[in-house]
Amino acid sequence: MQDKSFLMIPGPTPVPESVLVELARHPIGHRSKEFSDIFMSCIEGLKWLGKTKNSDAFIYTASGTGAMEAAIANVLSPGDKVLSLVIGVFGKRFGQIAQTFGAQVEMLTVDPGKVIDLKVLEQKLHEDKNKEIKVVTVTHSETATGAANDLEKIARIVKNHGSLLLVDAVTSLGCMNVEIDKWELDVVISGSQKGFMIPPGLSFIYVSPKAWEYNKKSKCPKFYWDFEKHKKSLDEQTTPFTPNVSFVCALKKSFEMMQKEGLENIIQRHDRLKTRLRAGLKELGLKLLTEDKDASAAITAIYPPDGASISDIRSAYKKDWDITIANGQDTLKDKIFRIGHLGFISDRDIEMTLVVTEKVFEKLKS
Amino acid sequence: MQDKSFLMIPGPTPVPESVLVELARHPIGHRSKEFSDIFMSCIEGLKWLGKTKNSDAFIYTASGTGAMEAAIANVLSPGDKVLSLVIGVFGKRFGQIAQTFGAQVEMLTVDPGKVIDLKVLEQKLHEDKNKEIKVVTVTHSETATGAANDLEKIARIVKNHGSLLLVDAVTSLGCMNVEIDKWELDVVISGSQKGFMIPPGLSFIYVSPKAWEYNKKSKCPKFYWDFEKHKKSLDEQTTPFTPNVSFVCALKKSFEMMQKEGLENIIQRHDRLKTRLRAGLKELGLKLLTEDKDASAAITAIYPPDGASISDIRSAYKKDWDITIANGQDTLKDKIFRIGHLGFISDRDIEMTLVVTEKVFEKLKS
Repeated sequence: MQDKSFLMIPGPTPVPESVLVELARHPIGHRSKEFSDIFMSCIEGLKWLGKTKNSDAFIYTASGTGAMEAAIANVLSPGDKVLSLVIGVFGKRFGQIAQTFGAQVEMLTVDPGKVIDLKVLEQKLHEDKNKEIKVVTVTHSETATGAANDLEKIARIVKNHGSLLLVDAVTSLGCMNVEIDKWELDVVISGSQKGFMIPPGLSFIYVSPKAWEYNKKSKCPKFYWDFEKHKKSLDEQTTPFTPNVSFVCALKKSFEMMQKEGLENIIQRHDRLKTRLRAGLKELGLKLLTEDKDASAAITAIYPPDGASISDIRSAYKKDWDITIANGQDTLKDKIFRIGHLGFISDRDIEMTLVVTEKVFEKLKS
Repeated sequence: MQDKSFLMIPGPTPVPESVLVELARHPIGHRSKEFSDIFMSCIEGLKWLGKTKNSDAFIYTASGTGAMEAAIANVLSPGDKVLSLVIGVFGKRFGQIAQTFGAQVEMLTVDPGKVIDLKVLEQKLHEDKNKEIKVVTVTHSETATGAANDLEKIARIVKNHGSLLLVDAVTSLGCMNVEIDKWELDVVISGSQKGFMIPPGLSFIYVSPKAWEYNKKSKCPKFYWDFEKHKKSLDEQTTPFTPNVSFVCALKKSFEMMQKEGLENIIQRHDRLKTRLRAGLKELGLKLLTEDKDASAAITAIYPPDGASISDIRSAYKKDWDITIANGQDTLKDKIFRIGHLGFISDRDIEMTLVVTEKVFEKLKS
């Protein structure tokens, strides 16, 4: 049925009507006072969301991967040692970008669905007697597996060691608690099509005072991503390059909705939706990729019941119920399916998803 | 008056209603057949617009400057000699990005409003006996001055010399004739908020077979911009990173409108609007920055009459008539004002602009 399509993938997520309406407005000039005011309110919104007063926040016209590249290119120099904590495709990507920019990257990798073992991390850093590991990259919530690292504890270990910490918070910011100042996160990135409830097209980056120190010494080439250019423009309440005016206006609307709901309520909602979805899926006899203690509040990865192909499952959700769910990625492709429950998702959507899931598997069995 | 604002700046340009309506639709999943079909029709649209069968076309979620960086990072290696033809801010930016990536850049610069002298270019390349100039960058239509280089002739000279030619066609593609195959343009970039009639947020890049040869040898780091990643995904009818789904859908709608109008008609319309605007402005006694023979079909830069400040002029257009026009940039700031007449602009808009311009200057004089 036309226009009934519903996205339960880990981004793009459903978008609220009032945000969509913003997108349909004529773009305004980006060098106007009117736009500057909207833009600066989004910067304030970002700081509110990341609970930071100390870090700068920038908006890039780019996907999340663009912001990852920005994080790397702005703090590293070729030859620098990097430890990448890899719990899935996106954690690996962070390390690969660092490699691309000439860093010596070691990847600490776990099995799909698992998270970083804090003891292993401590041991790994303990072995780095000469403090050669300059930067650690970590994924908070891994989009590919639905596992979430204990970011607060990882940050404490990394900061104790003295390395700079780059955090992929693409599917956690706006869904899970991220305390940039308190946890001393140095560079944090995120993307618009997730907890921010707008379509894909913008990414966000936070830069701590310590990250600025690294930036001063960084020798990787950058122009479009250059923190300095963005900071200089931000001081003039604008952007160095033509921004996605429409999306920035939509983001302002989205922040208004989020602030009305309240940050703690947003975090509690995502936690509640995750808990209910996981319990309901288990009641249906489905096996989940992650353990409860490691579960992301944004995405749940599910094994297919014996005999069911991922392709048939996705097709049943789509054809019979107009719901789009995601396949696995990379080595998990056709081995799991993923349900996104981040952003503009309510308790009603989760109950609906559970009912549909039951009917999908009843039909596939028959 | 609310919602009456009208943009006559060189991007963002006015956006057609049917494109805005596309933006207000719920985003669809980017890994779906439905999206792949839309995406591939946009790729075909790009090829149609650039009159190319030989070049690949990619879509980046980024501003035009992002595509400039992509052009540089994908074909150059540190130390390479680059000749940048600079007729304004954006031509200079192209050279600066090449410098950032370690190239030895020489800039051939002309006075504001002027274009590249073909004889000077021929002489410059003639002096390069050992063919050390690997790459030449050029701006087709310079957004900052409203001057347009003779791209066809520049291309012939550069190709005869054997250098790779990178073209900034941000404000020319979709407004002026750009023949990628016939003129042998190697890398051509453009942006969505110009002739494409959608808001800022996407940029476009064309890659010729010869540019691919350079790409194979390029040692500049790139990940988000990497031609190879985009090509590999394009072969699977998709994108390597989450695209701006909403904007790609809007672009499809925009291409439908453009194809209905016809490419030659679009080019003729822009030429007609430019000619009429320039004639009308001169009739009002205004002095233009560029000579008629060098004029871009997309932007006209105008000197203020004696005694009028650019700030007062822009303010009069905005406050009395709800029209946004642009200031000069860089050294031209507060010395000229610019009227954009590209994209979704009709003869009616030009007549309206001329009437308003007359009234603005009558009032400022009194």
